[in-house]
Amino acid sequence: MSEKKLYVVGIGPGEYEQMTIRAAGVLSKSQILIGYTVYIDLIREYFPAKECVSTPMMKEVERCRMALEKADQGHVVSMVCSGDAGIYGMAGLILELAGEYPQVEVEMVAGVTAASAGAALLGAPVCHDFAVISLSDLLTPKEQIEKRLECAAMSDLVICLYNPASRRRKDYLKWACEVVGRYQSPDTVCGMVKNIGREGQAMELMTLRELADAPADMFTTVYIGSSKTTVKNGRMVTPRGYRYV
Amino acid sequence: MSEKKLYVVGIGPGEYEQMTIRAAGVLSKSQILIGYTVYIDLIREYFPAKECVSTPMMKEVERCRMALEKADQGHVVSMVCSGDAGIYGMAGLILELAGEYPQVEVEMVAGVTAASAGAALLGAPVCHDFAVISLSDLLTPKEQIEKRLECAAMSDLVICLYNPASRRRKDYLKWACEVVGRYQSPDTVCGMVKNIGREGQAMELMTLRELADAPADMFTTVYIGSSKTTVKNGRMVTPRGYRYV
Repeated sequence: MSEKKLYVVGIGPGEYEQMTIRAAGVLSKSQILIGYTVYIDLIREYFPAKECVSTPMMKEVERCRMALEKADQGHVVSMVCSGDAGIYGMAGLILELAGEYPQVEVEMVAGVTAASAGAALLGAPVCHDFAVISLSDLLTPKEQIEKRLECAAMSDLVICLYNPASRRRKDYLKWACEVVGRYQSPDTVCGMVKNIGREGQAMELMTLRELADAPADMFTTVYIGSSKTTVKNGRMVTPRGYRYV
Repeated sequence: MSEKKLYVVGIGPGEYEQMTIRAAGVLSKSQILIGYTVYIDLIREYFPAKECVSTPMMKEVERCRMALEKADQGHVVSMVCSGDAGIYGMAGLILELAGEYPQVEVEMVAGVTAASAGAALLGAPVCHDFAVISLSDLLTPKEQIEKRLECAAMSDLVICLYNPASRRRKDYLKWACEVVGRYQSPDTVCGMVKNIGREGQAMELMTLRELADAPADMFTTVYIGSSKTTVKNGRMVTPRGYRYV
């Protein structure tokens, strides 16, 4: 085992309890925790003895280089991501940059991503085939996002939207609903979860028509059902198709 | 809080350590654990004092009814699923049947699904938009699966395949590669992980051309990259698009 070690750790939605046992173990033995300020604040209290370095949003490259550099200096470092570090997290960028630090061994520690954690609150919306699509066009052309939304809707996949809105992208969820609505009924069952596992956790079921005007923010995860998705006793369910009657 | 409680618990890929702290807590306080034989065997040793009921594959409806009935009788019951119970797990079917047991409160406990756990081993293959598609046509028409594969490939989504093969479906992965190959290059970066977090864990990177003849089984998770997916120092990476040069 290399002595120079960088862990890229998904802590799950935010609650300590939704972290894996492995993630908690790795964070405990890490000398330095690095991450976006919000995520570091979520876990800081559970790992009090460590040095914590939090960096603001939009500083991803700097944050990843810092983590690799600290690891290269011989510290055991964890890069902390919310959800799963491998799903819109820092895992990819760390591996892109890791070639510059050949002595550092990078290990990923998987976590519960928002698609799973939010689904558990709503019922079972992603219990059959689904697509995970981010509405952020900061790094992805909007036409590409549109094509993915269209193709997912066209093939009747459940769609889980990450980053459905931000201050700059107030109307993107409405736009996404319009794109999906080219193929799916306005009565399609949809759900929305906010602040999963954090203060202010809230969830709501609605139709695609209603979703277009629902207030989403960057801590919201959105589910657009397939044609098979239904509501059972107040829960959003996409059946796999088992026969039970 | 209702006294009649059924937890639907995702235990992650299989290792005790990849379970969430919450899942371990819920399983510890459950009086009865119910699940498919293979999954019950994975966790039985960690929760030795409990009654364990394991049922074979293909008995999903019976298994879910049994869990609901035991909970309705007043036992604290956990339905145990591998990965995340809400992704091709028993969460959906439990909620479909739960209406028959109105006294039972059903709570989902999210886990790390194979898409995340396998990705962590390969690198960061699903670090951008992706589709999760099961190749099992037991409950889904093959034409529907084909359309989803086509649409995912057409819109350059990374594709994560669950259930890529079984004894009955030996040639389905080859077929899926042919469908994806209508839109993606035969040199598309692909990856395959077997027995994640279990004995015999193995992983391999290959091209789409090679994937067609790769030996998959029902404990294999397959990743077909997008046009942007690359190999960095032996790891499969789908970049989000951060600029760092």
